[in-house]
Amino acid sequence: MAAVTLTIGVDVGGTKVAGGVVDDTGTVLVQTRRDTPADDVGKTRDVITELVTELAAGHDIQAVGIGAAGWIDASRSTVLFAPNLAWRDEPLRAYVSAAVGLPVIVENDGNVAAWAEFRYGAARNADDSMVMFTIGTGVGGGIVLGGDLVRGANGIAAELGHMLTVPDGHQCGCGRLGCIEQYASGSALVRFARAAARQEPQRATALLELADGEAEAITGPMVTAAAKSGDPVSAEAFAQVGRWLGTSMADMAQMLDPQVLVVGGGVIDAGELLMGPTRRSYAESLAQRSRLPVAEIRPAELGNAAGVIGAADLARRI
Amino acid sequence: MAAVTLTIGVDVGGTKVAGGVVDDTGTVLVQTRRDTPADDVGKTRDVITELVTELAAGHDIQAVGIGAAGWIDASRSTVLFAPNLAWRDEPLRAYVSAAVGLPVIVENDGNVAAWAEFRYGAARNADDSMVMFTIGTGVGGGIVLGGDLVRGANGIAAELGHMLTVPDGHQCGCGRLGCIEQYASGSALVRFARAAARQEPQRATALLELADGEAEAITGPMVTAAAKSGDPVSAEAFAQVGRWLGTSMADMAQMLDPQVLVVGGGVIDAGELLMGPTRRSYAESLAQRSRLPVAEIRPAELGNAAGVIGAADLARRI
Amino acid sequence: MAAVTLTIGVDVGGTKVAGGVVDDTGTVLVQTRRDTPADDVGKTRDVITELVTELAAGHDIQAVGIGAAGWIDASRSTVLFAPNLAWRDEPLRAYVSAAVGLPVIVENDGNVAAWAEFRYGAARNADDSMVMFTIGTGVGGGIVLGGDLVRGANGIAAELGHMLTVPDGHQCGCGRLGCIEQYASGSALVRFARAAARQEPQRATALLELADGEAEAITGPMVTAAAKSGDPVSAEAFAQVGRWLGTSMADMAQMLDPQVLVVGGGVIDAGELLMGPTRRSYAESLAQRSRLPVAEIRPAELGNAAGVIGAADLARRI
Amino acid sequence: MAAVTLTIGVDVGGTKVAGGVVDDTGTVLVQTRRDTPADDVGKTRDVITELVTELAAGHDIQAVGIGAAGWIDASRSTVLFAPNLAWRDEPLRAYVSAAVGLPVIVENDGNVAAWAEFRYGAARNADDSMVMFTIGTGVGGGIVLGGDLVRGANGIAAELGHMLTVPDGHQCGCGRLGCIEQYASGSALVRFARAAARQEPQRATALLELADGEAEAITGPMVTAAAKSGDPVSAEAFAQVGRWLGTSMADMAQMLDPQVLVVGGGVIDAGELLMGPTRRSYAESLAQRSRLPVAEIRPAELGNAAGVIGAADLARRI
Repeated sequence: MAAVTLTIGVDVGGTKVAGGVVDDTGTVLVQTRRDTPADDVGKTRDVITELVTELAAGHDIQAVGIGAAGWIDASRSTVLFAPNLAWRDEPLRAYVSAAVGLPVIVENDGNVAAWAEFRYGAARNADDSMVMFTIGTGVGGGIVLGGDLVRGANGIAAELGHMLTVPDGHQCGCGRLGCIEQYASGSALVRFARAAARQEPQRATALLELADGEAEAITGPMVTAAAKSGDPVSAEAFAQVGRWLGTSMADMAQMLDPQVLVVGGGVIDAGELLMGPTRRSYAESLAQRSRLPVAEIRPAELGNAAGVIGAADLARRI
Repeated sequence: MAAVTLTIGVDVGGTKVAGGVVDDTGTVLVQTRRDTPADDVGKTRDVITELVTELAAGHDIQAVGIGAAGWIDASRSTVLFAPNLAWRDEPLRAYVSAAVGLPVIVENDGNVAAWAEFRYGAARNADDSMVMFTIGTGVGGGIVLGGDLVRGANGIAAELGHMLTVPDGHQCGCGRLGCIEQYASGSALVRFARAAARQEPQRATALLELADGEAEAITGPMVTAAAKSGDPVSAEAFAQVGRWLGTSMADMAQMLDPQVLVVGGGVIDAGELLMGPTRRSYAESLAQRSRLPVAEIRPAELGNAAGVIGAADLARRI
Repeated sequence: MAAVTLTIGVDVGGTKVAGGVVDDTGTVLVQTRRDTPADDVGKTRDVITELVTELAAGHDIQAVGIGAAGWIDASRSTVLFAPNLAWRDEPLRAYVSAAVGLPVIVENDGNVAAWAEFRYGAARNADDSMVMFTIGTGVGGGIVLGGDLVRGANGIAAELGHMLTVPDGHQCGCGRLGCIEQYASGSALVRFARAAARQEPQRATALLELADGEAEAITGPMVTAAAKSGDPVSAEAFAQVGRWLGTSMADMAQMLDPQVLVVGGGVIDAGELLMGPTRRSYAESLAQRSRLPVAEIRPAELGNAAGVIGAADLARRI
Repeated sequence: MAAVTLTIGVDVGGTKVAGGVVDDTGTVLVQTRRDTPADDVGKTRDVITELVTELAAGHDIQAVGIGAAGWIDASRSTVLFAPNLAWRDEPLRAYVSAAVGLPVIVENDGNVAAWAEFRYGAARNADDSMVMFTIGTGVGGGIVLGGDLVRGANGIAAELGHMLTVPDGHQCGCGRLGCIEQYASGSALVRFARAAARQEPQRATALLELADGEAEAITGPMVTAAAKSGDPVSAEAFAQVGRWLGTSMADMAQMLDPQVLVVGGGVIDAGELLMGPTRRSYAESLAQRSRLPVAEIRPAELGNAAGVIGAADLARRI
């Protein structure tokens, strides 16, 4: 009987590094996490290698996959730029591989999450294609076509957050006006909710109570909690996000015609408060295609574990 | 010595059906064309079979590829809907194959043109990926990733003309407001030029002279001719189209990161009058990526022949 | 006892010239109408003078007011440009005054209607200020401040239809993209309804039935009739118009803070189907002013008679 | 010989209270200024009365005018709301009048500045009408028609900063998306410049040098200084502001047709870098009116003194 081969997945976030040993059914057998020393390139590498070494002890590990926010080169070796970490042209693959004595690949976190959902999550019944939007502080994404991640000629495809949505619209941190990240992100959700709470405080009492009466103190989890308890202003903030998200997903359906569309990230905790408006906007945007089959939109299923599972599964395919 | 295998490509347009015998270097050996009896489903099929039969005489033909504007099903057999022809759920592949006794595939015209440029035209040096916008009356497109056309789960990917560009923008024939087809098409070029000629006739004298003084009589070729002769209003109409086109191509670069981006269609006869503003808008939209490599934008090289060449080459790969 | 002084009002439209004898309570004592010979400058003048002469017979007429679509000079003498008539720099006041032997003023039709509503219609309780949008094929308007019409330094104020509403939006006949006339006019209503009927015919059966199944045959009165009978697509077309109208009225409230805002034109036959969405959009746009008093929006009350009544009343004030 | 009557003007800003004795030619004879105790309602009133008492000593003062940012009621007595001060429904007129024993009026600062420019500044040759945009951190304004300020039915007209400019555009502090204040203000200028400096630092070296290399440290005066020294990114930030400003001024010309349009506020120190793009955008927006006379756009002439001069002149007209 052939032994089950195992891989390790590592998810490097701005505040935590999570890791796990994963088998070939996407099950996490062991996991652990540490704080990210985000400002220190050397220490971040060390935390990763320590964590991998610890996880590898006592398992027969085939390879290691590392997911991180940022631009990764086409050979999946070097982090070209990571917005939340100090890495600039960081040869992470070579460093970790030498340190732990295993094959390593590095992958963008949006791609990793999309791969996990494609293999073991919301799109596991799809065998060919899916597009996933991950809604966090910003907007990320991943694209699978022909059963593989679309990584692009330079390794930097699926940068979904910076597609133009409103010409001359809200200023994005990237310098442009009107990127989708300014309309369909967790930051946008909070911005919409704060603005409405300042504008119509009498309608936002439930939300403002959570924020001790200060519109500026409103956070994403408060908007979710208030929306679930019936606060109209919070529900409208989710509806605004959903409206823009549905429009962008319709663009994806028209461009790539995938089997499945997935929405992930913390905002999906709001359930139908987000998914309802998203699906309505999607359907309206595709009305001229109403005679044709089109991808269904599904919420992600793996939550935060997607980073570890996806990275581990990509490592299995080196 | 092995004989050269030949295929036939057919390009079914709203006014002409063109066909040719093509070898495995993309060279058209023989070609012919007929008028399209666009309102008559049966006659259009007959014209296609007659034309194929005529071309096949005296050649050893391996297969036939047919390109047509419209939605084609995923098995490349049936034209689901063709905006300029009477076809609705037309089983074109079965009909023509039975009539001519050869294997047949049917493909969307935007995909066909993109494939021709990928194999033998502007993107022939690319081996993996390209995205092409075809600017005619409307906006079409084709996407190649991993060396193959992206056809989508339902066969209807690469519907690039109906991506949202201006929320609440110009009304599109599809029913939505603000599709890219309303800003970066030949129709938009003419609309921009006519509006400017009505608004500032004294600046549009060269253009209006071509149209016998009637803004409503201005056509696309007139705008091209006037722009080339220095008419400022016509040049500005091309710059407007280029500005929107560049923005959409930047979205493609961020999403799919292809090796090459191609612009085709009659408007490219305007040369730098179109390509200059397109490239500037593309570069500005991607400024935040300025440290990374990014696809170059190239004009298509095969012109009208792309339809026949691409269809024939796709037939070779059945 | 002083005799009641009477004036004559003339409303020169693209298809009909209407006239009436009006007393100082805004009551029309006698009225008549003729076809407009729109292409013939001389005949249009003749029709006006014949109609005035006929109406004046047997009444003691003090003066004549003439309202017409177009730009009128600041002295209210000359029609600089009339979009629906052949007049260009037409000295209408001098001509008619000489022909009928009475003082004459010429005024823009939007101003005339606004004046009628201010004096005798929806804003008759206001003594100082009102702004009126007249929604016909296009969008016109009139502004009253300090108890007088705002005519502007050059006589051409209150050109409300061409304020920018959507940057890079729907192309306007004036040459710009995105004028309010493209979003809040009768033409826009029909355009929205036709697009929706093409896009989702199964939801527009009631509307399409009125148009014999042809989306292109849909007219404004059909949209009104279908909306009143519950057709959802027609109701949505009104809601779209109302949404944009409410936004522009909020801009007016913030800029001029008038006592009353009035909406006139054929579209108000739709009642709450238009006024409801207009008021909601207005309230949302002014939410940050929710602690302050703000003008109410009222439908016009005088209908087509506003042209004759307003022109006659303005003549009384020469 | 009649003695010259004098009035006092007070300009209450967020950081300074300025006051002056002004004669009937708009000349400031004496002036003084103090810090604003912005958080303390009582102390702010006291500073105003002390300053007026000091200025009044030794002059024959007829009345006092006070200008302040905020909403003032229609009787020009009460500050309903002041964004930068602690005043809420503050009966400022009654308080100061009782304290100094002189007639007092209170007026919005945008109105005050517009009135000063109309009487003694950029629009002094106009006798009837002008519209002024004041570009500070936000966007304010004032409207003169028929030789008088347009104050509105509720005293709150000329709230020019919150007219809708880009539907779904940049989030405004007022809660709406897309107010003109987000595109044509000093804050927008800085936002545009910071974004461009982050996006293309190599083109913004002159600007970044002034800010010690930190895009976030860029201020409005730095953008002005860098633009004047040839920094392209800074010049483009002014061009963006001017483009939006010109569009809004065209809307004003179409709506109110004033004799003169004026732009004031600190940004006009940039001279043609701002005024050039503003005038071009204005002309393009009005192209369909090109056969008609239209108001010229002029920079304000009185600078910071407009607050004192305008308030004093309005007091003269009590």
